[in-house]
Amino acid sequence: MSRTVYVNGRYLPEEEATVSVFDRGFLFADGVYEVTSVLDGKLIDFPGHCARLNRSLTELDMANPISDDDLLEVHRNLVRRNGITDGLVYLQVTRGAADRDFAYPDDPEPTIVLFTQAKPGLADNPAADRGLRIVTVPDQRWGRRDIKTVQLLYPSMAKMAAKAEGADDAWMVEDDHVTEGTSNNAYIVKGGTIVTRQLGHEILHGITRAAVLRFAREAQMKVEERAFTVEEAKAADEAFVTSASAFVMPVVGIDGVTLGDGTPGPVARRLREIYLEESRKAAL
Amino acid sequence: MSRTVYVNGRYLPEEEATVSVFDRGFLFADGVYEVTSVLDGKLIDFPGHCARLNRSLTELDMANPISDDDLLEVHRNLVRRNGITDGLVYLQVTRGAADRDFAYPDDPEPTIVLFTQAKPGLADNPAADRGLRIVTVPDQRWGRRDIKTVQLLYPSMAKMAAKAEGADDAWMVEDDHVTEGTSNNAYIVKGGTIVTRQLGHEILHGITRAAVLRFAREAQMKVEERAFTVEEAKAADEAFVTSASAFVMPVVGIDGVTLGDGTPGPVARRLREIYLEESRKAAL
Repeated sequence: MSRTVYVNGRYLPEEEATVSVFDRGFLFADGVYEVTSVLDGKLIDFPGHCARLNRSLTELDMANPISDDDLLEVHRNLVRRNGITDGLVYLQVTRGAADRDFAYPDDPEPTIVLFTQAKPGLADNPAADRGLRIVTVPDQRWGRRDIKTVQLLYPSMAKMAAKAEGADDAWMVEDDHVTEGTSNNAYIVKGGTIVTRQLGHEILHGITRAAVLRFAREAQMKVEERAFTVEEAKAADEAFVTSASAFVMPVVGIDGVTLGDGTPGPVARRLREIYLEESRKAAL
Repeated sequence: MSRTVYVNGRYLPEEEATVSVFDRGFLFADGVYEVTSVLDGKLIDFPGHCARLNRSLTELDMANPISDDDLLEVHRNLVRRNGITDGLVYLQVTRGAADRDFAYPDDPEPTIVLFTQAKPGLADNPAADRGLRIVTVPDQRWGRRDIKTVQLLYPSMAKMAAKAEGADDAWMVEDDHVTEGTSNNAYIVKGGTIVTRQLGHEILHGITRAAVLRFAREAQMKVEERAFTVEEAKAADEAFVTSASAFVMPVVGIDGVTLGDGTPGPVARRLREIYLEESRKAAL
């Protein structure tokens, strides 16, 4: 059965879900996106994704084609129409179609696209029991990673490089310090302290990151927001990543070095439990 | 009258020229492009653009959906159908449509799109007589600018920043040295020597750059391929940029500093003449 996809106000079968070849999302990567998880048919951290979407659009002087309330309704409609119990809702807004020119069009009509991906058992991913093995790669992305743009070619390339080395994913490194994972924020734990890079232009301001750090502090865990080196990471007691679709995911190996006993650490496991429990409670 | 656009083997009216919302060009900026100028109905430097397209695709492990000969035919068909005397042919190849995943699809079918833009009097742009005034901005692009990908958001932002300052364009600067313009290679001339950044991952390997440097050497001009600073540029006798659509375009001001007497310099003017003459002769 074909999915229903939302494109500029219309609900279409996925085969008919298209955008103009003149769309600036296609020609210039002039677009931003969000991914919201669905658990038990409900949206996880929706207000956070909505707020970040608005921030990304503002940073790029791009118009928002939809109100937060209408956006919630479209999310819910797609979840219902596509019968999503566990999965994702992907949202993309671009500056719209215009004859090709580096300069922004004078009066653009933004393009908005939403689709769903069914991911049965999303919260029971066996990788969470096993833990990920990651490799490090140079961070070659542009300088404004805090804006969630569709310029995702390098993270894709890094993910493929990790796969080629038999790893699950990659962490990106700049000036000897880890920035983040290809599609997630990166953390290490040493002596009971959780360390993750501070916010800035260098990393995405993860919605899951914000929630997990709040839960960690509420649970009296010590959190340090600062950059850490690859050497520090290899010497850590445990490590993990967070993202909207992986929640909290333990990391058990870095560049071939096994962390601890090679199984997910207690901090990552505990934070995953808390995050899933609390975010299910707050789901919309 | 609607333009004819080429999409995956079909010639379509531009209103019907669309790609799937699942196209990786739209979702991940996982695509590359070329722009070929048309003068008097003929293609300028076509073999160079073809070679660079193949290089970009190879660098990204992306399949080429079309032979060089067929690509030439599509270019010519579009020029004829759209009645282009002077203008551009834009070509984009992406990894194709697939359900969204950072990892490349196993067996992707590349997407290929070509369209034209009419630019009457392209070679007689009055800006060439006046010269451009540019401003410098930090180079915030990704690390592989030698691959001609559609990750063009930052060059777009830089062009808009230049406009906001009343300038014509921007040069991008990294570690105090100029990399290149937003959509062109950058040159200065001092004491008769032409200086332009050496090839590497930091800049696009301009097809027009290669031709212009060859013509300059043939004309016994001295060429140094090395990075230069903004200070050097401001103290230069003259400056210019090259690109497929601007050919050789003089620069007469940098960050508010006027070069020479504020009019296009003799080296830039001479190289523009030679380039236009020679490339018209070799046009296909």
